[in-house]
Amino acid sequence: MSDGNQTKMIGKQSVRFQNPPCIIAAASVTGKKEGEGPLGKLFDIVQEDPMLGKNTWEEAESELMKQSSAKVLQKAGLKNTDIRYLVGGDLLGQLIATSFGVSELEIPMLGIYGACSTMGEAMSVGSMLIDGGFADRVLAITSSHFAGAEKQFRFPLDYGNQRPYSATWTVTGSGAVILADRKYLTRSGEPVITIKGITTGKIVDYGIKDSMNMGAAMAPAAYETIKQNLQDFGVEPSYYDKIITGDLGYIGKNILIDMLKENNYDISNNHTDCGIEIFDKDSQDTHAGGSGCGCSAVTFTSYILKQMREGAWKRVLFIPTGALLSQVSFNEGKSVPGIAHAVMVETE
Amino acid sequence: MSDGNQTKMIGKQSVRFQNPPCIIAAASVTGKKEGEGPLGKLFDIVQEDPMLGKNTWEEAESELMKQSSAKVLQKAGLKNTDIRYLVGGDLLGQLIATSFGVSELEIPMLGIYGACSTMGEAMSVGSMLIDGGFADRVLAITSSHFAGAEKQFRFPLDYGNQRPYSATWTVTGSGAVILADRKYLTRSGEPVITIKGITTGKIVDYGIKDSMNMGAAMAPAAYETIKQNLQDFGVEPSYYDKIITGDLGYIGKNILIDMLKENNYDISNNHTDCGIEIFDKDSQDTHAGGSGCGCSAVTFTSYILKQMREGAWKRVLFIPTGALLSQVSFNEGKSVPGIAHAVMVETE
Repeated sequence: MSDGNQTKMIGKQSVRFQNPPCIIAAASVTGKKEGEGPLGKLFDIVQEDPMLGKNTWEEAESELMKQSSAKVLQKAGLKNTDIRYLVGGDLLGQLIATSFGVSELEIPMLGIYGACSTMGEAMSVGSMLIDGGFADRVLAITSSHFAGAEKQFRFPLDYGNQRPYSATWTVTGSGAVILADRKYLTRSGEPVITIKGITTGKIVDYGIKDSMNMGAAMAPAAYETIKQNLQDFGVEPSYYDKIITGDLGYIGKNILIDMLKENNYDISNNHTDCGIEIFDKDSQDTHAGGSGCGCSAVTFTSYILKQMREGAWKRVLFIPTGALLSQVSFNEGKSVPGIAHAVMVETE
Repeated sequence: MSDGNQTKMIGKQSVRFQNPPCIIAAASVTGKKEGEGPLGKLFDIVQEDPMLGKNTWEEAESELMKQSSAKVLQKAGLKNTDIRYLVGGDLLGQLIATSFGVSELEIPMLGIYGACSTMGEAMSVGSMLIDGGFADRVLAITSSHFAGAEKQFRFPLDYGNQRPYSATWTVTGSGAVILADRKYLTRSGEPVITIKGITTGKIVDYGIKDSMNMGAAMAPAAYETIKQNLQDFGVEPSYYDKIITGDLGYIGKNILIDMLKENNYDISNNHTDCGIEIFDKDSQDTHAGGSGCGCSAVTFTSYILKQMREGAWKRVLFIPTGALLSQVSFNEGKSVPGIAHAVMVETE
């Protein structure tokens, strides 16, 4: 008997996969506003009706998940029974968008919560399940909905509150990827996109209490995770063609770049943020940018993967960022801790 | 290069570990009522003050987690930096009990949500991380608090609503275990307690809408997971010395036993439920039994592990059960789907 398993741990908080899992399919479903943004033409489905024909915002968000999961299965040519685990979550209390969105799929499910970092957590856990031999194929999925998130975290839309310029706009959308063991890859002529490693974030709390400035609350978490990824793998920022955070927005981006500069890491030339890419700053009135579990998920499954498939980027560090607050914690005067999970996505 | 990883998948939705992870330490912290129950003397810490000296129910629940995580580290003789991942969650929206409870530990964190099945999910994910070589030691932790849960899911305590006899009583408590690769085991003369395998549940929705009868809502999920575990591993119920669900209570227990009997599986002689074990039916006025993320966690980390260490039980199927509702989904008239995650715990 072996005295243990072969370690895939690297550095303080990272994993280097032995047989890097592959992304065999991805799908994105968004709302109308996202469809009108710079990435609009890259989404698989754009829904004009914010209610998606449902009676509540929560049901509408579940419908986004139903559509993104159906679409990704269709694109992969797979059935629900071909998927060993579903790993996913959303922003709503007790993950009800996910529970009611994916229940009909009848896939063994691991519900997760990392606020807007959830897509990074889903892809991290999914990759470990595959590289560990626990699954052949994993569906990683998240969603968010602008109106549902405003109701959950801030005010109902009918209240008509004013949004400060530091506020972000929660993306209405759901993104889904299917991760698979390499042997299930269909050779298509396109580059093989693999998950080379991950860096799992710690909770970072700098004491920021403004839920209307989540970029500032999350930037320190992104900083810690990126720095640790570079240290654990012994690489410089230039190793990556792009370092892409989830939803820091314009304010958080500047804080992140400054914090890394103080540690002699310069990411100013190769950093971007899904929340910045998804909306047009001048014409779409989204203030600091996009946010939400859906923001990084739909940007990854459309724009980022397209750039990688086309060879524009070969190595991407994808770092969805989350703000760990609730309406209750905010009303009780607690701070807004952040967390960020990094996924190393590379083409072969 | 290998064309894939060695599979640990077994049957339709189970995993058999190659190097079964070991439980190297466990700790339980509860409230006063739990301390007065049949298991009271087995808990590591019993807190007389339901507020634990804090200002809010949510902070009190976070404090339960702080104490259980500190206790389990102390019992294992480890520091926070010895733990590679923390996998945990709670019942509160956006997992705020966990976020504020464990942030000071600064351990890379995977937040999870499976309602009251969360301890099963935490131990399942943690075991996969260890057997997969992604971690040496994982801390799995959950909590719940009676008053916080009533506020979150039903009514504030001050409202003084009457509880039907089908209602369960949310346990105030937090349980934590440290899972580790076998090579980190300290030989103590006690039996080695390992996680032999897991069966990850699917969401099961029989359309029950009564949040005051969660045993009935969760029993079908427990039924599906137990049946699948028996089929995937090709064993009869008698393989297990005990089959222990999380918080079905008296009503859910009867439904579960009946459903399995219809499939020719008789668990009536070796089944029990943490929600039944933790309170005294006659004297403690908890109606259908205990419930909550903390119910299965503190029962497992006290009573169940004690029985195993003492040799009374060698093989236990531990199946925490969750009801996937929120106050919003309930108020919007949605059903209460269930989920259950099974963990095969065995002594050597």
